[in-house]
This record gives sequence, C-alpha cells and structure tokens, in this order.
Amino acid sequence: MIIVMKPESVESQIQEISKKLQSLGLGVHISKGTQRTIIGVIGDKKALCGIPIELMPGVEKIVPIMESYKLAGKTFKPEPSIIDVNGVKIGGKELTIMAGPCSVESRAQIMEAALAIKKSGAQFLRGGAFKPRTSPYSFQGLEGEGIQLLKEAKEATGLQIISEITSEYLVEKFIDTIDMFQIGARNVQNFQLLREVGRSKKPVLFKRGPATTMDEWLNAAEYIMNEGNYNVVLCERGIRTFETATRNTLDISAVPVIKALSHLPIIVDPSHAAGKAQYIASLSRASIAAGADGLIIEVHPNPMQALSDAAQQITPPQFDCLCKDISKIAEILGREFQYGS
Amino acid sequence: MIIVMKPESVESQIQEISKKLQSLGLGVHISKGTQRTIIGVIGDKKALCGIPIELMPGVEKIVPIMESYKLAGKTFKPEPSIIDVNGVKIGGKELTIMAGPCSVESRAQIMEAALAIKKSGAQFLRGGAFKPRTSPYSFQGLEGEGIQLLKEAKEATGLQIISEITSEYLVEKFIDTIDMFQIGARNVQNFQLLREVGRSKKPVLFKRGPATTMDEWLNAAEYIMNEGNYNVVLCERGIRTFETATRNTLDISAVPVIKALSHLPIIVDPSHAAGKAQYIASLSRASIAAGADGLIIEVHPNPMQALSDAAQQITPPQFDCLCKDISKIAEILGREFQYGS
Amino acid sequence: MIIVMKPESVESQIQEISKKLQSLGLGVHISKGTQRTIIGVIGDKKALCGIPIELMPGVEKIVPIMESYKLAGKTFKPEPSIIDVNGVKIGGKELTIMAGPCSVESRAQIMEAALAIKKSGAQFLRGGAFKPRTSPYSFQGLEGEGIQLLKEAKEATGLQIISEITSEYLVEKFIDTIDMFQIGARNVQNFQLLREVGRSKKPVLFKRGPATTMDEWLNAAEYIMNEGNYNVVLCERGIRTFETATRNTLDISAVPVIKALSHLPIIVDPSHAAGKAQYIASLSRASIAAGADGLIIEVHPNPMQALSDAAQQITPPQFDCLCKDISKIAEILGREFQYGS
Amino acid sequence: MIIVMKPESVESQIQEISKKLQSLGLGVHISKGTQRTIIGVIGDKKALCGIPIELMPGVEKIVPIMESYKLAGKTFKPEPSIIDVNGVKIGGKELTIMAGPCSVESRAQIMEAALAIKKSGAQFLRGGAFKPRTSPYSFQGLEGEGIQLLKEAKEATGLQIISEITSEYLVEKFIDTIDMFQIGARNVQNFQLLREVGRSKKPVLFKRGPATTMDEWLNAAEYIMNEGNYNVVLCERGIRTFETATRNTLDISAVPVIKALSHLPIIVDPSHAAGKAQYIASLSRASIAAGADGLIIEVHPNPMQALSDAAQQITPPQFDCLCKDISKIAEILGREFQYGS
Repeated sequence: MIIVMKPESVESQIQEISKKLQSLGLGVHISKGTQRTIIGVIGDKKALCGIPIELMPGVEKIVPIMESYKLAGKTFKPEPSIIDVNGVKIGGKELTIMAGPCSVESRAQIMEAALAIKKSGAQFLRGGAFKPRTSPYSFQGLEGEGIQLLKEAKEATGLQIISEITSEYLVEKFIDTIDMFQIGARNVQNFQLLREVGRSKKPVLFKRGPATTMDEWLNAAEYIMNEGNYNVVLCERGIRTFETATRNTLDISAVPVIKALSHLPIIVDPSHAAGKAQYIASLSRASIAAGADGLIIEVHPNPMQALSDAAQQITPPQFDCLCKDISKIAEILGREFQYGS
Repeated sequence: MIIVMKPESVESQIQEISKKLQSLGLGVHISKGTQRTIIGVIGDKKALCGIPIELMPGVEKIVPIMESYKLAGKTFKPEPSIIDVNGVKIGGKELTIMAGPCSVESRAQIMEAALAIKKSGAQFLRGGAFKPRTSPYSFQGLEGEGIQLLKEAKEATGLQIISEITSEYLVEKFIDTIDMFQIGARNVQNFQLLREVGRSKKPVLFKRGPATTMDEWLNAAEYIMNEGNYNVVLCERGIRTFETATRNTLDISAVPVIKALSHLPIIVDPSHAAGKAQYIASLSRASIAAGADGLIIEVHPNPMQALSDAAQQITPPQFDCLCKDISKIAEILGREFQYGS
Repeated sequence: MIIVMKPESVESQIQEISKKLQSLGLGVHISKGTQRTIIGVIGDKKALCGIPIELMPGVEKIVPIMESYKLAGKTFKPEPSIIDVNGVKIGGKELTIMAGPCSVESRAQIMEAALAIKKSGAQFLRGGAFKPRTSPYSFQGLEGEGIQLLKEAKEATGLQIISEITSEYLVEKFIDTIDMFQIGARNVQNFQLLREVGRSKKPVLFKRGPATTMDEWLNAAEYIMNEGNYNVVLCERGIRTFETATRNTLDISAVPVIKALSHLPIIVDPSHAAGKAQYIASLSRASIAAGADGLIIEVHPNPMQALSDAAQQITPPQFDCLCKDISKIAEILGREFQYGS
Repeated sequence: MIIVMKPESVESQIQEISKKLQSLGLGVHISKGTQRTIIGVIGDKKALCGIPIELMPGVEKIVPIMESYKLAGKTFKPEPSIIDVNGVKIGGKELTIMAGPCSVESRAQIMEAALAIKKSGAQFLRGGAFKPRTSPYSFQGLEGEGIQLLKEAKEATGLQIISEITSEYLVEKFIDTIDMFQIGARNVQNFQLLREVGRSKKPVLFKRGPATTMDEWLNAAEYIMNEGNYNVVLCERGIRTFETATRNTLDISAVPVIKALSHLPIIVDPSHAAGKAQYIASLSRASIAAGADGLIIEVHPNPMQALSDAAQQITPPQFDCLCKDISKIAEILGREFQYGS
C-alpha cells in the first residue's frame, strides 16, 4: 500500500503517519519526490483494518498495490485448479459443455433436451427450477418439482445436473439432488447466500454480475472459498453497457484476464450475453478460441414453446452443429471435446 | 405491444400470427407500411405469457408499449404516496433526513451520532449492523448487537431507526426492533428477500442497484408491493459507470424521472454515490433542489475512528451546516425541513 | 510514478531498472515489502517519454501518482479562473446563463428567443449554425447564414453569442463574429480542432464527451491551453451509461470534482443530459445547488416548430420561471444572478 | 414509426395528429387498445423532418420502427460487400490481416516490421504518423515523414499501407500515398472529416468510438457513404465500460450483430481493446472464430523501444505464431488465410 501526500503536506504530518504505522507493527518507507512525498507501507495490511489513513492530515490518497482476494488468486495457487464433479473434471484438458433449457417445464421437455445434448457430447444438463425474473408477473419456475424432473433426467442419461439456487433456504434442501449449484448474476454479491453455499462444500458455478468488475468477482468468490469450499467455477455471462443490440455485452476478455489473475476455471454463457439465438454459435466459437474451459448454453427441444427466454434458446440440431465446431477449435488449442459421444 | 414483421415476411405469416393472437382472446390491428407490416396487439398481454411470438416465422421484433410494472406505476396511482413510519411521513411536504454512521460500532459512538443528528433536525437514525462488504476480510458489522444499540439510541432520542437487512432469516427476527428495513444495492434483485420483506408489511427503503435501470428498479419494487406491502421508499445511490473520480455516478435525473413514472417517494444517498466526504454537501443540496423527498447521509462523530467507509462519512458540524442549507432550499421549492429542532 | 515489481522478480531486475532510471537523471527509491518490491521514481517524468518501463523484466505494473495535465490543474493555479468574454465574467460571484434554440432557424425565431432570454437575465445567446447530427439525413443547420442571424440578434440585444465550431476551417472564418466558440461533445478529442481553437485565443466552452473521464477531459483541455489559450470554460452535459430513461446521464458530481481538480469554471447543460423538456427545471436547480458557475439551456419560442431536438427545448415562460428559482438558490450559496434584468 | 398516445389522451387530439400526418402525405393507422391508442405512420418519414410530433398534445412517445441508416444497411444491399484495395479484397472468403507498429518511428523500425509481418502472411502494413494522444505532452507522431517511410516500406514489400487521418486538411494531401485511410475511434462522429473522406472515394477503415452504439456507428458510416464512397470497412476496437482490467472492453458480439445489420465487412483490433500484449493472441483467435473478416494488430520489432503504446504491441515471433492459429481457425469456418506466404 502506498500513501500519497498532498503537495502542501508538511514534515510533521509525514512523521505522525509514520509513527502511527510503526505503532501498528508496520514498516515505513518514505520517498520524497520533486512534487510529492509518498509513503510505502510494509507488512500485513490487516493491521490497518479500521484505521482510516486517508483521513489523516496531509494525505491525498491511498494506492493499493495488491489485490484484496487471496484464495482465488494466483499468488495463493499458481497452477490451474481442476474441479471434480462426480468424476467430470472442469478446468483440465477436456472442455466442459453444459446445456439444457432456460426453465424446466415438463418431464417430456427436460428428457428430450437431456437425450439430445448427451448425444452431442455435453456432460452437464442445465435447467432452471427457481427462476429470478425481472417482473414478478413472469413465470417463476417449477421449483421443487423442477429439481425432481432434473433428477429423473440425470438417472436416464448419466448427465450431471446444474441448477440455480436463489435462497439460503434451498442449499440444504437440494444438496443431495443437484450436482452443481449455480449462483446467478443477480446474486453475485448476495454474501449470505455465498457463505451458505461455501459451507455446503458443493461445486458451484459462479456467474459474474452485470456490473461486477473482475476484481470484485474474485473477492465475491472469496466469500465462498473462505468457508472452505474451493470448488468454484467462474462463468462470464455478459456485462451491462450502453449497447442495446445484445441483451448484455459479452466481455470475452474476461477469459484471458481471469486466467492471468486466478487459478479457477472459467466458462462462458453466450445465451444470456447475446439474448438472441442467432448470435450463440458465433459467441460460443469465440469463447472456446479465447481459451475458456467450457460453455453453458440454453438449448430447448422447441423454443417456440418455451416459457422463458424463448428468443435466446437454440434447438438440438443447432447445438449439435455447434459442438462439432467446438471440438475442432479445441484441437487447435491443444484441448479436447468428445463430440457426439 | 406491437409486432414488427420482417420486410420479406409474407401474407400467410401475418395471418398465422393473427389467428394465434385471436385464439388467445386478443385483438389484432394490422398496419401495412411501405416497407414493413406491423401488428398491434390489443387486450391483456398476460394471455401471451409463455408464447414466444418473436420466434414465429416472419417476425422481426416485438416493441412493448407499456411498462411491465403496475402497482409501482402512476397509471395505478396517479397521486404521490406518503409513507408513514410511526408518524414520520415520507413523501409529503416535509423533507425526511436520515443520518448516522456507516456501521454501528459502539454504544458511545451511536449515541453521540444520534444526539447530534437529532439536534440538526434529522428524523431517522441509520446505522449498519449487517454489512455487505466487497471483501470477506473487511469488518462485517456488529450484527444483532448493533441492532440492540440502535434500539437504545432510539429510546434515548425518539429517532426512527433504519438498518439494512441482508438475509431472509433476519426479517422476522428484527421486525419489531427496526422501524424501517433497508434493502441494499447489492440485493436489488434478490427476489426472495424482496418477497420476504413484502410479506412483512414493514416500511422499506429500497436502494437502486449499481446496474439497475429505473424500469428494472420499479419492477423489483413490484416484488415487494405484490406481496401487499406498499410502504416502499426508493433511494438513488449512484450507478456504475466508466468514471472513477467518484465511487459511483449519482444519477440525479432519477429524481425527476421517478417522479414522472411512479407515485413512490424517492430520497438520495449522496454518501455512497460520492464515496468522498468533500463532495457530500454539494450533492445533498443538488438532490433537494432536484426535488428529492429527503436524504440519507453517513455521519460519524469521529470519521478518523470509523471501521468502514471512513472516507465518505461527514462530521456532525458538517452535517449541521448542510441541514441549514437544506432547509433554505426546501423553502424555495415550497417544501419544509425543520432545521435545528 | 511507482513501479510495482512482480512477486517473483529478482534483485538483478531491480538493479537494472534503477540503473536505467538513474541514467536518465531520475531519482530512485526502493522499498521492499513482505510480498512486493516497489520502486519510487523521482524527478521529471518527461525523461521517461518513450521508455516502456512496464515492459522491463520483473515489472508487474506502473502506478502513476500525479495527473498528466498541468495547465488545467490546481497545482498550476490554485485560485479559480474567471474567464472574461467582452466584459461578461464566467466563474466569479455572478452566475452565467446561456440560452437559446438548439438550431438557428430564422431571423424571427432567433430574435424572439434573444429578446425573451435577455428579459429573464441571460447573458449569452446560444444557437447552433453548424449542427453535428447522428444521421446525415437530419437538418444540419443554416451554417454561415445562421452565424449572421446570431450577429444581428446580438446587435439588437447586447447578448454575447456562443455557437459550435465543428471544423478547423471555421475557426478563422468566424473568429470576429462569434464571442465564444463551443466545442461539442463529439469533438472532445478532435485534437486538431482543439489546437486550432487554442491558437485562436478565443474564449471556448468545452463540452465533456459522452465517454470521457474527468481526467481525459482535463487532458483534452490541455491541448487548448498548451497553445496559449487559457480562456476555457468546461461544460458537463451528461455521459453515456446503460440507463435509457434520459438521453444521457447527467454526472452532477462533475461539478464538485472539477472544482477540486481544476481552476477552470464549469457550467452545466441540462438540455442534452435530459433530452426531455420536463426534466430541465429539476436538473438546472440541482446544478446550481451543486455549485456550478452557470447553465446553458435550450430555449425555443415555439418548440413545436423546432427543426432539431424539439423534445428537449423549453419555452420562454418556462425559462423565466427557472431563472427566478436560480436567482434564489444562488443567494443561498453566496452567489448572484440578476433575474429579470 | 408508431405514435403512442397517453392514457388520458382524447379523441380530438388523435384526430388533430391524423390530420397533420395526412396533410404531409402520410398514411395513418389508428389502433385503439384497452389502455392506449397507438397511431401507425405509413410512408416516407422524411416528410416529418422538423415536425416534432412528440410535442403534440396527447402524445406519450414515438417508437421508431426502422433504422435511420440506409446505405449501410442490409435492406439496401442484402449480400456482403467486398472492398477492393488495389487488388486485396476485404470481406470475401480470404481473411485480411493488417499489422505494424503503433507509431512509425524510424526507417529501420518500419522496414523491419514490414518484412516480418509480410513473411507471416499479412496483407496490410499499419503505422501511425498522426497520433491522437490523450495528453498533448505525449509523442504525437512523425507526421508527413512517417507517411513517407510507410511508402518506402510498401515499395520494398508490396504490402498495402493504412494510416490514420486526423484532420480534413490531410485527406487531399495523402490521397495518393496512403492505400486505405483509417478514421480513429475519437473521430467517429467528426462528421466534417467523415464527409471529406467520403468525397475522396478512398477505401476507409472506420473504427467504432468508445461510446458509440452499433446503430450510431452505422449512421456515422452513412456520412461517408452518402458522399458516394462505399469502400467502408468497419473495425471493432473495444468500448468503454466500468471494467478497468483491460484498456477497453472488446465487444465481440459486434461481429455477428454487424453481420446481421449491415453488408459492410468488419475486422477487429484486439490491441486497443486489450491494451496488454499478453491478451492479444486470445482475443485475435476469438475474433476470427466469431466470424470477423480480419484483424488489425500492433506489432513492433522491439516493443521495449516503442515510443507509444508499448505495452500492447506484440513481437514478430508472437505475431507469426498467432497467424498460424488464425489460418487453422479460418479453415474450420470455411475461410482462408495464407499463413507464411
């Protein structure tokens, strides 16, 4: 941490700050420039918790040098993490594809979707049972019944199931049914829910919020990891910008940036980013080419009948075609995806 | 709702859509332009829930004509709502000032703050007990003990107390202690929490999220109101933009826009918007001049000792000075604020 | 400037950087923390121009300590600047109000507008002659003829005239006719135009761009000032964000922030920020209450007949009413505005 | 265009608007819903230029149905355009790679860069001679001398040259030397410059601005095309968002969206988007996989010596490696790139 002093600051102010820091067991390095004095603070910054240095007389600003997350960062663990979900590995050489409808709507629908995506090579079946919708008057999901249907589809296909959890109450309730919890974009800083999911030790797909910087996202992941749950997979799903041609703006750079900052795997959700089925193939290919560890894609056997987000769901044949391209791009990058297993 | 057909759409496609709409009990108005055909849909759009018209052959896009929120809108209730919190009225002629420290830290601190703000004219004491912080390693609040200290300060001063609730579990627990619940920016679309607060019927200060449009904000308020709780006061606290000179960008236009769209009162939080004490007075005066129904301001008896957000808390003398200005601006707008009661 | 070294950097890398800096005549301060070494650079950073320190082995990042603008900053000139436009002073105790139609449309229109705003107390007549419009098919202004009509209105009323210049060619052409040049938001980083206006020494109203940070804005002002033209007045007119309820998002915080960073006066354009006439009064009052040195407002004798931006122009009676409020708020802040002179 | 009437509007207001529209030769379609009346306007909307319908009594809002650009849109020309630059075709089956240093710095530097990129397969040499820099104190380019050096490099290698033009004055001056003009992000709405480049009929690479929507971008392209110059290639280079981990946020979705809206080719500039050399390869692969028609990449023989944007320039070996990957991804998409010609 660096303390930048005001041009008009005086020696006694610098001394007072130094004394304060030293009394807290911190080291001090004073550097007098031609126009500004800066004070380098050495040692564990936790000692400063609750000491508002920026309010001390003569101080212009504080410049943090190190990131505030620890467990999620590369300094803590330089090599990439591989998350194991009942034997399916996320973040290794093999790419992970999660697919399925926006909402679980009926036994027939989820079973048809599961069989189709399994055939193209997906390892996970996604399906929303608890749906956070912008308006309370929109379809809110089948809730517990939806989870039950996912479980049946899993038994029939062997796919792992992933579904969103929107309330602390649901964690314990579905811990034995759902293979991987999803934390949605709207709950990225619902810290109570993050802590609860952390305590569950269950693998979690953790979506970025629409206005969350990567630094804040990794700090939020820290809430989960700090409870002892290191099974976190990040998911970029678009951020909110001024552009309205797409539902969100896919921040494709999140892939290489997260790879540089963190050891956690990162996958991409092109469906919520684009908001339109016609752009999904393009964004999916781009994500894999950028180096993502996988994709989560909305696939509906009959989008025309979908009860939510109809416009952004692709059909099984479109998904199959996409998986074929993905397996070829994977190869160029030295990775693998078993298309049409 | 209007359906815009593609330039290359054909008559049979238009007919198919018309038939579909009519079968659902909706009226249809076809308007053929020189380059596009548009179809106006008449009647209750709920009939269309789960029918993805935008996927029907020939359709280019759907243009909604009416907002999706109802109870929060002016069509539902044209005259301004006045929210009564134990006799203190928010949204009427009188302005409401809420003030107090970011976090409740000790009995002495909260009591000193309460006495000071009461003296300047504030009607509400704010103080965080459950603090959602970006990093899990930052001070997280005194929790239940903090609420207890707020209660004591209330008994000593007669101020109403407002505090943030971050979990569904807390609603019932503190329903008799806290006079007004606050829903923070990070929970603006934590719909489970909104529903729970809705069911409590307790007055709620509902902050806008950093990436929430006004339309989404009113839709989120609808989650609370749809449970029968109409005691909602909106709070603008800055949105996230590319500008980094302030913590958030105060969207001052939210004041006149919300007044045009909704009957709910709106107050402003300049502290979280600015993030720096030196800008609070300027933004507070601006908010009242813009027509806000009040302010919520962070005031700490000794910001140098604050355990959270030290840089944005002002001192009691600064607050007093501000209240004096507020009372004068109020008068110009035909409103009232009893400075120095 | 501070150089932050990577955790894995070695002593020889630190030495190499030190030597490089010293060979350029710069001082060096090395501070070894528990996890990172940082190097403080002392002296004139111009010596580093063209030396990409961030690419030297072992370097993690560069943290600039001082802003890159000089002439526009408070370090260069701590006391507020007052810009004199033929005797009308901007930035002093008196507020400056500029008003007039979006576009000059006819002699009758501009004359009617000029007389009306003069009566309410405005000191400047604005009117676009060269209009930068999003689409080439929109009305582009009366060009030279428009400037001529402004001149006639000036002669009849004594108002100073301000009009936008969109091309380097126009600077010399209209230097004797226009009292104050306006640089529009779209040209905020059209550096050739800025330099040309700089060389003209003419007072200039310099609008912020829709995606320009305050730091970039002051750096752009530096292009004008670096040519010897210190007669710069800044104008906040809204930035681009995700919110669509207003045309732009008025960044009201720009007023106190610019006052903290720069000695240049700042006025506000609520018309382009709001994009809707109904919000202008609210935002104008807010701007003055925030501490702005003035306003530039679109006023049209008959908005129903306007050839551009009809929706955001207010009428002379609305403007008059607004000026009355402004003069009262001015008083509270210890400033002056002669309403109804 | 659709006119939405207020809920409280009355029949006489609807009639007045209808009469007005009909008097202008426009057709009218009135559709009365349960809560709102909407009026469809049929015919050429140019007749409405300068008639502020939104201000007529009873009108709530105007909803445009069609985009305002014409020549740049797919309705005007459904099949993709191929831009021919002295025989090199942009937008066809073959991908176009433009590369070279941020700034032309010396004969040796530009020649070394040219030879290297030619060897890897690039068809265009880029190099800035007129550099728009945030601060006036940064290196501003070699100007005319830089263009001369580009010309020499062209003669030696046969590469086409592309360079940025920042002023109307420069268009005529360099029309015979530069093969393709570049309009930079800061000048995306410098309409005078766009018109001048339009009149030149020269091929132009037209970068998106940091706060420009795709709709505005296509409207700006219309300024060039409306002068008779259809040789426009679009270039996505990142937009400004709240995220600071990258210099800009690459809007990868611009690739499929522009392909859906326009017939113009689109290439991607990963260098300015990322701002860091380490992310260039990832974003380049992603862009080609998304369907871009090419790339423009900053390559410097020795980034350590670069006079501008050192951090984002890659080396010739890194570029070569990237070109190899590009040629393989091209194949998967049914396109071509001759790596290592």
